[in-house]
Amino acid sequence: MDRPFVLASRKDGQGTTVSIPAAEGTVHIGGGHFVVIAGPCAVEGVEAYLALARRLKQIGVHVLRGGAFKPRTSPYSFAGLGLEGLEILAEARRQTGLPVVTEVLDPRDIEQVAACADLLQVGSRNMQNFSLLSEVGRSGKPVILKRGFSATIEEWLLAAEYILAAGNPQVVLCERGIRTFETYTRNTVDIAAVPVVKELSHLPVIIDPSHGTGRAELVRPVAKAGVAVGADGLMIEVHHCPSCALSDGQQSLDPLAFAALFAEVREMAQREGRRV
Amino acid sequence: MDRPFVLASRKDGQGTTVSIPAAEGTVHIGGGHFVVIAGPCAVEGVEAYLALARRLKQIGVHVLRGGAFKPRTSPYSFAGLGLEGLEILAEARRQTGLPVVTEVLDPRDIEQVAACADLLQVGSRNMQNFSLLSEVGRSGKPVILKRGFSATIEEWLLAAEYILAAGNPQVVLCERGIRTFETYTRNTVDIAAVPVVKELSHLPVIIDPSHGTGRAELVRPVAKAGVAVGADGLMIEVHHCPSCALSDGQQSLDPLAFAALFAEVREMAQREGRRV
Amino acid sequence: MDRPFVLASRKDGQGTTVSIPAAEGTVHIGGGHFVVIAGPCAVEGVEAYLALARRLKQIGVHVLRGGAFKPRTSPYSFAGLGLEGLEILAEARRQTGLPVVTEVLDPRDIEQVAACADLLQVGSRNMQNFSLLSEVGRSGKPVILKRGFSATIEEWLLAAEYILAAGNPQVVLCERGIRTFETYTRNTVDIAAVPVVKELSHLPVIIDPSHGTGRAELVRPVAKAGVAVGADGLMIEVHHCPSCALSDGQQSLDPLAFAALFAEVREMAQREGRRV
Amino acid sequence: MDRPFVLASRKDGQGTTVSIPAAEGTVHIGGGHFVVIAGPCAVEGVEAYLALARRLKQIGVHVLRGGAFKPRTSPYSFAGLGLEGLEILAEARRQTGLPVVTEVLDPRDIEQVAACADLLQVGSRNMQNFSLLSEVGRSGKPVILKRGFSATIEEWLLAAEYILAAGNPQVVLCERGIRTFETYTRNTVDIAAVPVVKELSHLPVIIDPSHGTGRAELVRPVAKAGVAVGADGLMIEVHHCPSCALSDGQQSLDPLAFAALFAEVREMAQREGRRV
Repeated sequence: MDRPFVLASRKDGQGTTVSIPAAEGTVHIGGGHFVVIAGPCAVEGVEAYLALARRLKQIGVHVLRGGAFKPRTSPYSFAGLGLEGLEILAEARRQTGLPVVTEVLDPRDIEQVAACADLLQVGSRNMQNFSLLSEVGRSGKPVILKRGFSATIEEWLLAAEYILAAGNPQVVLCERGIRTFETYTRNTVDIAAVPVVKELSHLPVIIDPSHGTGRAELVRPVAKAGVAVGADGLMIEVHHCPSCALSDGQQSLDPLAFAALFAEVREMAQREGRRV
Repeated sequence: MDRPFVLASRKDGQGTTVSIPAAEGTVHIGGGHFVVIAGPCAVEGVEAYLALARRLKQIGVHVLRGGAFKPRTSPYSFAGLGLEGLEILAEARRQTGLPVVTEVLDPRDIEQVAACADLLQVGSRNMQNFSLLSEVGRSGKPVILKRGFSATIEEWLLAAEYILAAGNPQVVLCERGIRTFETYTRNTVDIAAVPVVKELSHLPVIIDPSHGTGRAELVRPVAKAGVAVGADGLMIEVHHCPSCALSDGQQSLDPLAFAALFAEVREMAQREGRRV
Repeated sequence: MDRPFVLASRKDGQGTTVSIPAAEGTVHIGGGHFVVIAGPCAVEGVEAYLALARRLKQIGVHVLRGGAFKPRTSPYSFAGLGLEGLEILAEARRQTGLPVVTEVLDPRDIEQVAACADLLQVGSRNMQNFSLLSEVGRSGKPVILKRGFSATIEEWLLAAEYILAAGNPQVVLCERGIRTFETYTRNTVDIAAVPVVKELSHLPVIIDPSHGTGRAELVRPVAKAGVAVGADGLMIEVHHCPSCALSDGQQSLDPLAFAALFAEVREMAQREGRRV
Repeated sequence: MDRPFVLASRKDGQGTTVSIPAAEGTVHIGGGHFVVIAGPCAVEGVEAYLALARRLKQIGVHVLRGGAFKPRTSPYSFAGLGLEGLEILAEARRQTGLPVVTEVLDPRDIEQVAACADLLQVGSRNMQNFSLLSEVGRSGKPVILKRGFSATIEEWLLAAEYILAAGNPQVVLCERGIRTFETYTRNTVDIAAVPVVKELSHLPVIIDPSHGTGRAELVRPVAKAGVAVGADGLMIEVHHCPSCALSDGQQSLDPLAFAALFAEVREMAQREGRRV
């Protein structure tokens, strides 16, 4: 790879640390820190989300996730609560003091989303939505850039380059599985992508074992593999009742299973020399 | 496939015909008609584009193509002339009387693009940009919806469903090759996708052998395969000087080679009972 | 591609013609000839096979196919009649005067298979079974080498090189679909592989739309695409009763549907200047 | 998955332990043991191999690897020393007291290979060479069955079923990366395949990060991911001088780098409760 990306390219041993100020203390991603981001696929209602947010804070997660605008393959699927979802996220942020990340789908929504969220997520299907990348770059908000499910690592880093080139240095990459011929899992986690990104780029990189596998029972082992391979964090879907979830229930953990995973992963990351 | 799409689903023998009014006569896609859409990857300048447009009209093409807004993997590549490109397309339409198609990348650009173009193209990278699909649906303009390079046929038809569900029945599908492990060609044309789409849906479907193969020498045989397999048309990249092109030169034909292909394809389509 | 294959490489305009002597007249593959190879996936019984063979001869096919040794994903599936199947093939050859092709799985079977068959087939799963390739090369019998379902074109030509390097120049390549993420079809026919092979190699290349699509209703359009793209022939699964077949029934045509396809394909090939 | 495999299927919590008697003590794979198999891609010469074998024993590896018969994409590549290679392996076994694994390509070679090796390896390209699988099953020797580079997990377990159905219960599965669109790495390690196999089958499963990534610098992180995800062992390519290797040099570690990896992996496996 002759590195067609410039700003995303690693020049020396120093990696970028993305810092997210929050009431409970600034959260750092990269630079030896290990973060866990958790929450449901979509924000489905105010009571359930706030209760889950408090529970996740208690467990120790660093960032809350929850979708307000959901990209859905079918126009007839639940597409999120929209503005109402954003308000619920803002309330969860107030109550827990934790930063919040949510996906943005449309350049016209960025301002509203940025008012409620601490990090903007660009999803897999929009990884090459170049208008969105540039606008997210201009927003100045930290960004989690998911790898397109059929994007090469080079294309992924070039997508990051769009954000960086628009003046926003705060980009976190997220490996969430690629599309292959294997159908037993929803996607195939490209575990080697983590050290490859570390070699090629200074940007932090996290793993999403929930989308990566599509199966709740595989989230724990793949999360542990993510720690071992050197990821800077994890993004995990947790739902108060996975079997009732309006989306992604099959890959969501309940709070109890998540708490066990969190404890195991934290200990492992600390042994690997990470600050958690 | 239990057909999660509804409006895109074939109910009977009748296929949809998309009609595009134009000064030189209405162009029909589907319903036994066979169309050839041709032009360069990007509009690069006024003189060259207008000269090429006149030449293509002379050869017999039905619709002119040309990119004004180009989605590029790298932020440092030529991304099209933007508004200036749209004006050149409008001028080509005036001079030739042919309808014009161009890609739209951003929901905020639709109005301007729709003022200059007769068909809107949604490109492969935006096939699951659901905001764009819905807005393009609301625009009322005929749409060419390219298959995502890693989209299943079902996902592609669900993307069409977004446009149809927004009230726009004029959708033309375009198979342009999928991403596989084979690297000799830029993509792998999924030739069977044409009869599959015909079986599942009433929408017309065309083939783009230029992006599908990424190699000029393969465009002619794959275009012929497209006619034989039952496609309703072809979209082909033609450049007045492929070796000077700012993008996609390797897969572009010069006007001479294109004229030979056009004659061969027209005769073949007519033998297959199509109106060309 | 810098052509790591030597003997398989095209040096000039001349293509190889593989010639198979038979009672009804020598069959030529390549060099402007167009052949149709047809028969069931597996030889299931003597009466049914002989009746079908006579019917196929009447329709006009050039070579009969039928599996005696079947590679099956599961050890519990019907794996062919073995030696009994070979004898049935030999009898069909006597009765029809047509040459016969069957698959060989094991280097130890080559002698017996070669005694009953005019062409040896190396199947997709064995494309990189290098012992088998070398032995088939030493056998001196014409060989149909199917592309591995995940082999690049370069790997396929290198597999042919093994046979050629063992002293056997009579190799016919067969594109039979590759494995991709798309699940609606059993495989994805790589239609552009035909002109790519023609450009890189002097060996004849045919298409198998039955395995390529896995669906009977797609065989006709993809067979026509094969003619249009420049293939030297077709290999098609025909069964006297597809719904009773012990294997591959879903992708097999009955004799009536096949006769219609044959007539259409012959006319098309002749218009393309081929001798059929 | 409705489990078309029977003998390979997990029925209860108990996993199979494959036991390999050796002068230095029986080696166990599965059942809570963690093994490291190491050695060069191919046995290239007697002195170098024996020196490396002694070094690997000193480091602590449990099984030596080395190819005598190498499956090579091109007929012109170095294909191993054949019988001479087998004799070198037998000598290494004598000198170190460690068991030895080597690949078998041809059913006719099994007897000779089995006389020199303690485990037979069936390689990725032969995973669906059903004659070979059955013969290896009849040999009674423990087998390492590598996943085909484009095989689904179900097909892989069905290949194991062939060996088990032939009467050989001693099968170790090896994930070695699958073929995807990503070209930066040689293959994409399907890390989730390990817990999937553990869920579906009682057979032990190991990981080969050398073939899985094709890059020496990625072997350590992916090996650690393999431990974390629950693999029963690792197979790693080590060469006394990677840059002089006749094959796979790019993905081979030198003894020094391997010793560091071994120490790290052993400690990690022990913390995970494995006997190493």
